[in-house]
Amino acid sequence: MGRWVPDSQGRLIKAAIELFTEYGFDQTTVAQIAAHAGVTQRTFFRYFADKREVLFWGQQKLDSLLVAALEAVPEDVEPLDAAVEAVKSAGAVFGDEPEGPRLRNQVIAANTELRERELLKVAMLAESLAATLSRRDVDPDTARLAAQTAVTVFAVAFAHWIDEDAPRQFATVVDETYRNLKALTATAGVGSA
Amino acid sequence: MGRWVPDSQGRLIKAAIELFTEYGFDQTTVAQIAAHAGVTQRTFFRYFADKREVLFWGQQKLDSLLVAALEAVPEDVEPLDAAVEAVKSAGAVFGDEPEGPRLRNQVIAANTELRERELLKVAMLAESLAATLSRRDVDPDTARLAAQTAVTVFAVAFAHWIDEDAPRQFATVVDETYRNLKALTATAGVGSA
Repeated sequence: MGRWVPDSQGRLIKAAIELFTEYGFDQTTVAQIAAHAGVTQRTFFRYFADKREVLFWGQQKLDSLLVAALEAVPEDVEPLDAAVEAVKSAGAVFGDEPEGPRLRNQVIAANTELRERELLKVAMLAESLAATLSRRDVDPDTARLAAQTAVTVFAVAFAHWIDEDAPRQFATVVDETYRNLKALTATAGVGSA
Repeated sequence: MGRWVPDSQGRLIKAAIELFTEYGFDQTTVAQIAAHAGVTQRTFFRYFADKREVLFWGQQKLDSLLVAALEAVPEDVEPLDAAVEAVKSAGAVFGDEPEGPRLRNQVIAANTELRERELLKVAMLAESLAATLSRRDVDPDTARLAAQTAVTVFAVAFAHWIDEDAPRQFATVVDETYRNLKALTATAGVGSA
């Protein structure tokens, strides 16, 4: 009970995702997760309020990281460039190995409630980035559009990144997605609108 | 009970949004909505499975409308142009008067569960558009990026449209937002990436 367990949190996350993947999110209990990680339920609740939190605990960290990254971009960088630069820094949270994020994503995709929660977190991330851009010399409309577009690039890049056979750095995939978006808008509507 | 009530569905929607706005979504019952609309609960349930459905019943229609609009765009139109053209047609569902959509939006914004549901519907709309683009000569990555970007334009335009003092056509605001996005990506990263 009282003995020190190295990286209990990491083992709980790994154990939870394994069980969610095998038995489904709804069918997995906290007791099973704790047992599978070799810790007590008390240890589980020291790190997470409930089993859903195991999937979303990193979101606050991600939010803070991206806002800090955006604040660090020089003021003279265009708003969309700045916001995309910020989302590239998410690679530090995801790591270089998409296996964990991919499994987590599969668990979330299989459950409507979890998917809704994930989408809300992403929407809140866009709001944080828009608010951060607004503190620069960027009008609110442009800030919102740049932030939401950067988060779209982020989401498309993420879906691509976790699906690659030979994983690359997350930031590299963001760069590529952003280039693709620029190509899309550049070829679009020549002469129209 | 049995007598014919003209446009019960429309009155139920109006009544529900009025009550949700005044008392909150959680505090409002189906019985109150039906009474406020001057119909029986039985009539309510002829149109909606529950009170949440009053807010989301139009979503299926919106989805079908936008997919049909996208299918109607000539094949030689660039994918992002085509997807944006499709989201413009949502104006036919929203009408020219943003008052109703604005009140609905306020109800949704005030309730986390409703917001999550709304985000899921928007995500599913993006998936429908991506699938429709994929049936053209568009690779899956480009289809996903174009669809998600068009939906981002849609969401930003919608937030703007419901907030305007002198309301314009929804399609006009989409056009404007799309022009702003093109300006953002055009000024972005000159020489970089």
